This record gives sequence, structure tokens and C-alpha cells, in this order.
Amino acid sequence: MPYAEMPRIDFRTEPQRWRHWRLDVEGPVATLMMDVNPNAGLLPDVELKLNSYDLSVDIELADAMTRLRFEHPTVRVVVLRSGKPGVFCAGANIRMLARATHQHKVNFCKFTNETRCAIEEASAEAGQTWIAAVSGACAGGGYEIAMAADRILLIDDRRSTVALPETPLLAVLPGTGGLTRLTDKRRVRRDLADLFCSKEEGIGGRRAVAWRLVDEAIPPSRWEESVAARARSIAEASDRPEQATGIILPTLKREETEASLAYRHVFVTMDRAARRAHVVVRGPASLPEDLAGIHSAGEAFWPLALARELDDALLHLRFNEPELGLLTLASEGAVARVLASDALLETNKADWLVREIRLLWRRTLKRLDLTSRSLIALIEPGSCFAGTLAEILFAADRTVMLSGTREGDNRATAIALSPLNFGAYPMANNLSRLATRFLGEPESVAGAHAAIGRNLDADAAESLGLVTQAFDEVDWDDELRQILEERASFSPDALTAMEANLRFAGPETMETRIFGRLTAWQNWVFQRPSAVGEEGALKRYGTGLKPVYERERV
Amino acid sequence: MPYAEMPRIDFRTEPQRWRHWRLDVEGPVATLMMDVNPNAGLLPDVELKLNSYDLSVDIELADAMTRLRFEHPTVRVVVLRSGKPGVFCAGANIRMLARATHQHKVNFCKFTNETRCAIEEASAEAGQTWIAAVSGACAGGGYEIAMAADRILLIDDRRSTVALPETPLLAVLPGTGGLTRLTDKRRVRRDLADLFCSKEEGIGGRRAVAWRLVDEAIPPSRWEESVAARARSIAEASDRPEQATGIILPTLKREETEASLAYRHVFVTMDRAARRAHVVVRGPASLPEDLAGIHSAGEAFWPLALARELDDALLHLRFNEPELGLLTLASEGAVARVLASDALLETNKADWLVREIRLLWRRTLKRLDLTSRSLIALIEPGSCFAGTLAEILFAADRTVMLSGTREGDNRATAIALSPLNFGAYPMANNLSRLATRFLGEPESVAGAHAAIGRNLDADAAESLGLVTQAFDEVDWDDELRQILEERASFSPDALTAMEANLRFAGPETMETRIFGRLTAWQNWVFQRPSAVGEEGALKRYGTGLKPVYERERV
Repeated sequence: MPYAEMPRIDFRTEPQRWRHWRLDVEGPVATLMMDVNPNAGLLPDVELKLNSYDLSVDIELADAMTRLRFEHPTVRVVVLRSGKPGVFCAGANIRMLARATHQHKVNFCKFTNETRCAIEEASAEAGQTWIAAVSGACAGGGYEIAMAADRILLIDDRRSTVALPETPLLAVLPGTGGLTRLTDKRRVRRDLADLFCSKEEGIGGRRAVAWRLVDEAIPPSRWEESVAARARSIAEASDRPEQATGIILPTLKREETEASLAYRHVFVTMDRAARRAHVVVRGPASLPEDLAGIHSAGEAFWPLALARELDDALLHLRFNEPELGLLTLASEGAVARVLASDALLETNKADWLVREIRLLWRRTLKRLDLTSRSLIALIEPGSCFAGTLAEILFAADRTVMLSGTREGDNRATAIALSPLNFGAYPMANNLSRLATRFLGEPESVAGAHAAIGRNLDADAAESLGLVTQAFDEVDWDDELRQILEERASFSPDALTAMEANLRFAGPETMETRIFGRLTAWQNWVFQRPSAVGEEGALKRYGTGLKPVYERERV
Repeated sequence: MPYAEMPRIDFRTEPQRWRHWRLDVEGPVATLMMDVNPNAGLLPDVELKLNSYDLSVDIELADAMTRLRFEHPTVRVVVLRSGKPGVFCAGANIRMLARATHQHKVNFCKFTNETRCAIEEASAEAGQTWIAAVSGACAGGGYEIAMAADRILLIDDRRSTVALPETPLLAVLPGTGGLTRLTDKRRVRRDLADLFCSKEEGIGGRRAVAWRLVDEAIPPSRWEESVAARARSIAEASDRPEQATGIILPTLKREETEASLAYRHVFVTMDRAARRAHVVVRGPASLPEDLAGIHSAGEAFWPLALARELDDALLHLRFNEPELGLLTLASEGAVARVLASDALLETNKADWLVREIRLLWRRTLKRLDLTSRSLIALIEPGSCFAGTLAEILFAADRTVMLSGTREGDNRATAIALSPLNFGAYPMANNLSRLATRFLGEPESVAGAHAAIGRNLDADAAESLGLVTQAFDEVDWDDELRQILEERASFSPDALTAMEANLRFAGPETMETRIFGRLTAWQNWVFQRPSAVGEEGALKRYGTGLKPVYERERV
């Protein structure tokens, strides 16, 4: 199925339109019930049996995760359960995987991984801890969702088990972080992990606990009471507010044409002939004066609105515009006002809502880091890459800045740093983008820190190492044209692989291992005939025919 | 070109037979001159122009590295140079890459990476520091060899440059560690790395120094004198002996039949129908009494001889037997005598030769870790998995042990640990195999340490977490048959990817990033039509035709 036949995907949703999940909030405990509607999947002819999932299910999970954070400030524990008897979740739907393009499979796995990591961020950073209460079969991607939770409770009823049967059944990897979380998060002994991943059937009860696959196996007689007790005791340790009013997140509005996408603060224009998109983020027109103003602005507060829009635009480009291999990133607005927004975010960082806005930016910037397109940031007169927005420069593969001004344009060309560039938005490697940038010259981080708040022109930005190249007005057009044409002439695949290696220097974390190592191996397997060929396991699954494998080891 | 047409590869060589390298030793400084014979490559119809290389060149480089360590104990610095005017090294040969099978390409890159890491080990652990004296064009794999050196000196003659032009020219990755060493070892700023890797032409002179691509750019007038001076000053800091006699490493003897490979201490039998090989290592028949005895035994000293043989056998299986997807690993001999060998290696570890033997074992065990075959160790009566040999158990994906004895066989079934299991042989992640195994239960490392020197039967080994499963005589044959048949029924590709993820839990190092992330991305790219398709860049390189790329980003 070539990508042109994949349906166009819209990541915007809201609880009233969810088809696969139910959310029930009781005081500090929310229960999120997975109850996949088998006939409401992405592909009309693929039925989502046994709580198996496709992207449509994961889009709603991501939406639930976000809304829990913003709309339910007093929720401290999220209990993940199944709404179907006898099955927790059967994992990613195999027929969908067999039908989807390589590009869709890879992006699907990336998005689901991002959502799993966001769930872990909720537990670690936002005082909203997820626990999985597993009853019934929990296999493949189902167990991978459970592993994203902080704790896994398994009912010990002799039928409920966890499993990662991808290798024996499907000739692919448990690729939504499963292998990495098994060894790195749950720290399962490697030979037991090997045994576990080689079994089609699952493991339950005390053995699952002994192998560290789950945290507790609980007899049916004490199940409901134990789940409730664990939820209560975790809730007590949270720093979420006791009383607070949430911020409603209305569905994003955007205007679309054949060649553009316009939100309130984000504008995308697409040049399909040149295979690139130009993304402009607009600075704040106005800002509230204080914390009360932030809360009353709610979803309209500029940094919150902008992050949501940028996130949506990136997902749209990833899935619906795979041929646009290069994104030029620009901004328009007042540097001083972006710094004023950062000051609000810094002064009020103890507030639950401000914390959530900062965490949303952290996730959105990670989404940008992981977007498999060449990213070239352009700094021109009237741009406002300051503080939080300057992170976009440091996420880009290259930044090009105009030196001086442009004739007939009085606006300055400057960037600026704020305290938020020094730790508020760690990358997947847990370092700030500036610390990653300056691994080889750590003194440059201090140099940049000393420049906080100053308007930096091209000379200053270059000498601080903050931009890649600067050109004056005379050279700008030619140089830029050359950079963009050159990039467009390279193999998109080679760029994907090169960028994935160059973007994440320095220390590794479970997250970098998931997006770096595991993903790369999975991409490889997703191309191999043993998995995706006509006689491969994905194609033959459920047909009664045995798959045929290539016999050589690579 | 299907693998059956790839020539059979022999990793054994010796200086008299080298075709591509010259070694010149003057006191503490060795000069290793790369001078590739264009007509002596692996494939008869592929000419190795401009010091480009294929596996035949790298086999000799690995041989030189090993012989420098054992045969030249007083060499403290190795200066890597080119024997060809105007070119240092043009990198891996493109026509070879275009012709070779996917399996050969992947294994070729793994072997070259292992050799680069061994060069770094020489600098870091053995007091034998490599420096690259680069004169002429140094591109792609050529620059990657230079980056493996501890220091890169570049002649500043306006013609000599370094480059990684793989992405623009060939649509593949600089895959011999290049991208990883760029960001992690040399700590080149990521946007400059992106710029550098996007250029077909190289970078030289002061700019190469400013970008951290080389350590010094030296004018021609001071070139020879500076290279000599750097070599001398590095030599002074080495702890290699001032006076010592090397150990000659004669070419390994082995007897081959259609289904077997026999060395002195390593015996491989191949079952092609079942697609597996059985590897037996034999314990020492006798051992010297002291350090003088070790030196006079030389290459015949059991641990040295065994490591060389095991290394050769693994390489043979990797390249020449790609369909044998499973290795069963067994041993025969006396546990006590293996422990006695370990005691010799521990008592005399300050000696240069003993240090080299331990480092050779470290490299060989890493080679086993990285061997992309399922590894199942079998512990049966009369086996001698003790100390150094027990590392084989911890490198295996699973270990299966006989519980009790076998009828008619009086020999005990036991394993044993020695101090060498606790740090002498770190994995690529820089942890011992036991520390990696017990990431989730660090107290088990202490438990194992307390058992040093004891003969451990199946009960003891299981309760210490040292083996995966134990079966008694009644069940052994059935259980083992089931394990082996099950493994053989899985997709070889899925196993490759799964094992690559499960084997290296815990911290990451540059080495794990090279073999984990970079390699996986490279394997992916090496399958993509934009690189290897009929219209791809590798196939079209040098034809005058432009490659055609798939336009979608993945």
C-alpha cells in the first residue's frame, strides 16, 4: 500500500469524540479504560480485535495523557485498565502493520514511543503517576504500554499473563520500547529476557514477579482492593494541588489549503516542487501580567497555545507530508516580548499550570529533535528566536543568520537567551541543547549564560557559537539557495540516518536508546523479507501458512 | 552477488604475506605505512585505487595491531601514515560495497569497527599509542581510521584535508564509527558536524583544527620534525617495558573438513541441516609454573593460544558460514586447571605479556558478544567453564546446565568463578558481564564474588543466577532439542535485532553507540533502494549517471 493510499491523519481529538478510551475521575485517582472499538480504526478494512491498536487508538491515548495534565490538575494517579474481559491489550494490530507503508510503520512506532515516554514524564516530573492494573492477556505492545507505567500490578488468576511474542510470532521486534524497558527500566536478567522474548505464551503469577516482569501478582480476591490501595498510597506522595481548576483545551483551529496550514501562531507553507516546508512561529502579541492572568488566559496563553500548535504541525508534516524532507524554521515577533513570556514561566514555575506548560514545551521540543526531516533555522530581520524559541535554533541541524540588516527593513536581526535555555528543556539525553552543543567546549555554556537577556547580532551569536553560519544581505539569497538545493539533492534515507546519529551526542538514557538503537534495529527489520515480504511473518500471520525466512544471519 | 559467490575468507596472515601495509620499527616508535596494492583485493575484478580498502586490507591492519602488541613489546607509539603520495586513504572501496552482499557489508563494517576499537584499546590500556600523520586526501573510511588514533596530525599544505563525504556522494553513512567519533570522541559541534558531513570536499588547515576535526595542522617545513617530536613525547609517557623480547605469533594451524574445523584447543562441528555449529573449547593440558615459564611457552601458553583460535573460529563462522544461525558453546577439561591458569594471569598481571593476553581475551570476548548468532552455552559433565572460560557463559544468550551426573559418566558437572570474572574483561558498555547480568540485583554480584573458587553444581549455579535453566539427565535431551529447534524456527533477522538489544543493558559508551546505534542505522541504509538499488548511489557511483533517490522521508 503506497503512502498515497494511507488515510490523511488528524491528530486533533477530544474526549467527546474518543472511540477507544474512557476516562473516569474520582478525586485524586483517574481510571483510564482501554476499550478499543474494533470498527473505528484507521484503515476501514482492518478490525481492531482484542484491544489491539493502531494509530487512531494511540492518538486518543496521547490526547488523554495531555488532558489529564491540563484539565485535571488534582489527579495524582492514573490507573490504566482494560474495558474488555479476558484481555488487557493484544498489542499493535498485525494486519495494520502488514498493510502499512514502511514510512507509516516507522512514524507510528515513533509516535507511540513518544506517548510512552510522555507517560513516564507524567510520573517522574508532573506528580501524576501511572500504574497499570493488568487483567487478562497482555501481549506485545500491550505489555509495552504497561511497562510505560510506573508500576505493573497483575491479577494472579492463572490466565492473566504478560508476553513479548513478536520474535517468534511475527519476525519483528517488540519495538515500542519493549526490549529497552525490559533490560534498562525493569532490569530483567538478560538470559531471562531472551527466554521471555522467545516464548509465544505469556508469563504470569509469581514467576512474572521473580523475573521482574511485573511488580506484584495479586490474587483475584484482593485485586480491586489492592489496586485501590496502591493508587491511594501513591497519590499521597504527589505534589499536585489539592484544589485547583483545570484549563480546558479546545480542539485546535487551523486553516488548510493545498499548500499551507495556518494556526493562530504557527504558519506552514509547503513547496512540494522543492520538497520543503517553511514553518513560521509568531511571537506573543500580548501577555498576562501575572500568574492569575496566566490562569485566566488558559489555553490562549501564548506559550501554551504555540506549543500545542507547533506539536500538531510537526505531527501533520511527519505523517501526511513524507516527501517534504526539509523544514526551514523561522520566527516573527519581538525578542523582548518572548523574553517577557519566559520571565513569566520562570517566576511562576512552582505553579502546577506553568509546570505543565514548561513540560509541554519540553515534549514538543523533543518531538522536533526526533522529527526525521532536515531542520534549518533562518534568523532574519524581525525574527524573535529568544529564550524558549531559541531552543528551536539549537534543535535544528543548522542555523543561518543574516549579518546586519536588510535594505528597506529597519528591524534588527537578533537572537537572545533566557534562563530557560539552561536546563528547563532537556533533550532525550537529559542535557540541555546548549550543553549537548558544547560537549567539546563546556566553557562555551558559561559564555552563553553570561549573555542571557542581551540582544545578540550575527557577530555576537557566531562568536558565542550559537549559529552555524552568518551571511550578509549581498550573499544571503545565493548562499541560502545553495544550502537548500544541496540538501534536497541528498538521499532522504541517508539524511535520516545521519541526522539520527549527529543530533544526540553525549550521554545516553533509556529514551535515547529507545529512539536511537531500538528504533534503528526495528526500521531495519521492518524492511527485511522475513518480516514484510510476501512470504514473511507479518503478511502470513493468521493465514494458517507458515512464514518463510531468509536463512542467512546478517 | 549472492553470498555463495563471495570468496571464502581466511583471517590468518603474517607480515611476510602482507600486501597492503609496511611496518618499520625504530626503537619505541613504529611506523605503519598504508600502501594498498590495488590488484590484491578480495574481489578479483575490484581495483583498490587510492589506498581504498576492502576486507583484505583490514585483515592485515588487524594483524599488524595484534603483532605490534605481542611481537614488539618495546614499541610505545605507532605512527600511521600513507605510503602513497597525495592520498592518505580514500576510504572503503565503493565498487566492493556495491558488489558485496548485505551480509558481507554488515560483517565487514563490524570487523573494521572492531579493529578501530582495538586500536583505541592499544592507546588506552596497553601503553601503545597510535597517532595518525595525515598527508594527502583523507576521506570517509580513511578519516575514520585516523579518528581511531589518539591524535591526528594534518600537514597544512593546502591540499591535505579530511572529509566524510558518504552522505552526499554515496547515500550511505560514514559507518565505521565516523559519526559517533565525530560527536563523542572529537566532540565536534553538531551543526559543524552536519556541515562537514554534507560536503563532498574536505576541510584542512586551521579550520580543521578550529572545528576539532584534527588536533594540529602543521606546515610542510616542520612536518617530519613535528611528527617525530610528537611521537617521542608520547613515547615518554608509556609504561611499556624499555627492554623485552616479544612473542612470535606463528600462523594458526587448523584442520578443515566440510563439516569441521579443528585447532589445538578449539573444535567446531557444523550441522548445516540444523543450521548450527557446536564449538568446544578445551582446557589446558599443562601450564607453566611462573612468569618465566609463561614467557618461554610464548604463543603456546594455553590462554594465549586458545584466545587466538577462538577469535579465528568466530570470524570464520561470521563470514564463511552465514547460515549457521546458532552456536552451541561447550568446554572440556579440568575446572581446577582453568582456575590455575587464571591465577597465573592474575598474579602476573603487571607483566607486559600477561597484560596483552588479558587484553586479547577482552577483545575476543567482545567479539563473541558482538557475534550475530544465537549463543547457547551447554554445561555438561567434564566441562570446564571456570574463570575466564565462564565469561563465555555470561556472553551467551542462554546457558543450560545438566543437573546431577550422567549414568556411566563419573565426571562432575560444575562451573567456577575466579577474580577475573569481576572486572578483567569489561564488555563494550565498560561493565563486567556479571555486573551487566545483575543490573537489577547488584547484590547478586557480591553473592557470586563470595563463591570464587568453589565448584558450583547446577543447584548452586542456579541459585546464584549464573545459569538460565538446569535439567536433569532424564529431561536433558528433550529439553535441549526443543530449545535448539525452536530457535532455528525463528526469523534470523528478528533474532539479530533482538539479541543486539538484549545483550547490552546498562550504561552506554562510544563503543556501544558504534555497535548499537550507528551500526543499526547503517544496516538500514544498506538495504534502502536509494543506496543499493539499481539506480542507487552505490551502484551508480563512478558511472557518470546521477543516482535516483526515493523521495519519502522515513
